[in-house]
Amino acid sequence: MHLADYLKEKRQRINQQLEMLVRDYTVSGRLQDSMLYSIHAGGKRLRPILLMATAQAFRVPEERVTGVASALEMVHTYSLIHDDLPAMDDDDLRRGKPTNHKRFDEATAILAGDALLTLSSQVITEDAGLNDAERVYLVRELTKASGARGMVEGQMQDMLSEGTKISLEALENIHRNKTGQLLRFSILAGAYLGGASEKVLGEMTEMAEALGLVFQIQDDILDVTGDSEVIGKPAGSDEGNHKSTYPQLLGLDGAIAQKDKYVQKAQQALVNAGVEGTTLSELIHYLSTRDH
Amino acid sequence: MHLADYLKEKRQRINQQLEMLVRDYTVSGRLQDSMLYSIHAGGKRLRPILLMATAQAFRVPEERVTGVASALEMVHTYSLIHDDLPAMDDDDLRRGKPTNHKRFDEATAILAGDALLTLSSQVITEDAGLNDAERVYLVRELTKASGARGMVEGQMQDMLSEGTKISLEALENIHRNKTGQLLRFSILAGAYLGGASEKVLGEMTEMAEALGLVFQIQDDILDVTGDSEVIGKPAGSDEGNHKSTYPQLLGLDGAIAQKDKYVQKAQQALVNAGVEGTTLSELIHYLSTRDH
Repeated sequence: MHLADYLKEKRQRINQQLEMLVRDYTVSGRLQDSMLYSIHAGGKRLRPILLMATAQAFRVPEERVTGVASALEMVHTYSLIHDDLPAMDDDDLRRGKPTNHKRFDEATAILAGDALLTLSSQVITEDAGLNDAERVYLVRELTKASGARGMVEGQMQDMLSEGTKISLEALENIHRNKTGQLLRFSILAGAYLGGASEKVLGEMTEMAEALGLVFQIQDDILDVTGDSEVIGKPAGSDEGNHKSTYPQLLGLDGAIAQKDKYVQKAQQALVNAGVEGTTLSELIHYLSTRDH
Repeated sequence: MHLADYLKEKRQRINQQLEMLVRDYTVSGRLQDSMLYSIHAGGKRLRPILLMATAQAFRVPEERVTGVASALEMVHTYSLIHDDLPAMDDDDLRRGKPTNHKRFDEATAILAGDALLTLSSQVITEDAGLNDAERVYLVRELTKASGARGMVEGQMQDMLSEGTKISLEALENIHRNKTGQLLRFSILAGAYLGGASEKVLGEMTEMAEALGLVFQIQDDILDVTGDSEVIGKPAGSDEGNHKSTYPQLLGLDGAIAQKDKYVQKAQQALVNAGVEGTTLSELIHYLSTRDH
C-alpha cells in the first residue's frame, strides 16, 4: 500500500473511533457539540497513526490499539483548544476554521478541553480489549507524558520563553516536553502492547525522541521556506511571534543538517529494535520531508 | 475523638500528602508555584475526609486511601481554578485570597488546572498501596464522576441556566452532576476498597446522593441566612447572580424541610449498609448544620 493510502485509511479509522467514543461518553448539548467540533476539525492524526504503525510493526492487532490511539488524540485535541484561548496563543483560526472559543465561547472551550482530557483516561480504563495491567501502564504513561513534567510544563516554558533569546539546549528541552513526550508515548504504547523487551523499548524511546525533534525542526523549516497556503498559517509567523527556532539558531542549512542527523538516528534505532523496513520507517521519511 | 479534632487531623494528613505529591510530580518553576498556590489555599477538604471516613467505616487502613483521597482533591482544586477564570465565574477572591489567575495570570491558571487534572489520574496509577484492578476501578470512577457526564457537564448546565428560572428537577440534576458526583465518588471509593458487596455499594450510593443534596441545600440556605464573614463570600450573592436556589424554589422553610428529608435518607442508608454509628453519621449531621 502506498503511504498516502495508508495514512488516509488510518485517519478514517481513528476519526470513526473518536466520533463514536465522544458520542458514547457525553450527553447531547452544548458541551458535546463543542467537543465534537474540535474532534471534527480533523488534522493529520499523526500521533494515533504513529501508535498504530508501531503496533503493526510489533504485530499487535489493530483493534487492541484504536482505543488508546483515540485517547492520545483526545489529549492532543484538548491541548490545542486550550492553547488557542485568548489568554494563551489567542488564535482565531485553526486549519482555516474558527477555533473552539470563537465558534462557541471561552467558557465552553475551557470545559470542552477539560472534558476531553478527563475522557482520555476514562476510555483507557474502560477499553475491553486491554487487561488491567495494560490499562494502568497506558494511563500512567499518557498522563506522565502530558502533565506537569511533560506537555503542560512544555507549554508553560514555551510561553515564558517568548520574546527571549534561548539556547539550543533550552529550545530542545521545550520541544521535548511540549510535543516530544506525546510522540514518545505513541511509539512506546505500541511497542509495549507488542510485548517488546526492555532493551527494545529503550531503542524505540531513542527513535521516538529523535522523531520528535525531526518533526519540530521540519515545522520550523517550513515556517521559513513553506507556502502559507500549504502550511495553513502565515509563513514567517514564528519570527513575527519572536519564537526561537532552529533556523534562527543554526541557520537554514544548519537546521537541515541537524534534522538529517536525527532522521539517521531514528532509522538506526528501528534497525536496532529489529523493526526496520516497516511503515514506521516510511513515516520517519514522510515527517522529515512533509510540506505542511 | 471530637469531630472537630477528627476533621483537623484528617485535614492535616491530606494537606501533607497533597503537598508531597504535587512537589514529587512537578519541576520547580511557575507551573509548580501556581499548582501549590491553589493546593495551599486550603479549604475544608471535605471530599478526601468523606473518603477517609468511609474507608474507616469499612475497616480499610488509612494509608491505602490517602493517595486516592489526594487525587480527588486535585480534581476539586482544578475545577475551582478553572471555574474562577474571567470567562467562567470571574472571581477575584477565593477564601479571602486572590484567585489563581489574579495571583499569576490566566494562562498559568489554565495550565495549573490542566496539570492537576492530569496528575489526579497519574497518582492513582502509581499508588503502590493499590493493585491494578483497584487502580483501574478508581481512575474509571473518578474520571466518570468528573467528566462530560459528571462535573464538567454540571458546570456547563449551571452556566447555561444562569439568569433563567429552572425547575426543582433541573436544579437537582445540575447539583447532582456539578457537586454530587464527586461526593458520590468519595463514598464509593472508600466502600469499594473495603470490599463492600454490590448491595452495600448500592446503599452507600443512596447515602452519597442524599448527602450531596444536603450539602447543596445547606449552601443555598447559608447564602440567605449566613453571615458573610463566616461563609467567606457576600451573603445573598446567589440572588445577585440570578442563580436558582432551593430557598427561591421552596421558600426557606421548604428548603429546610427538604434538607431534613435527605438527612434522614442518608442516615437510614448507613443503617442499611451496616455502618451506622461511625464518623460518617457525624459527618452527615455536621454537613447539614455547618455555618460555612
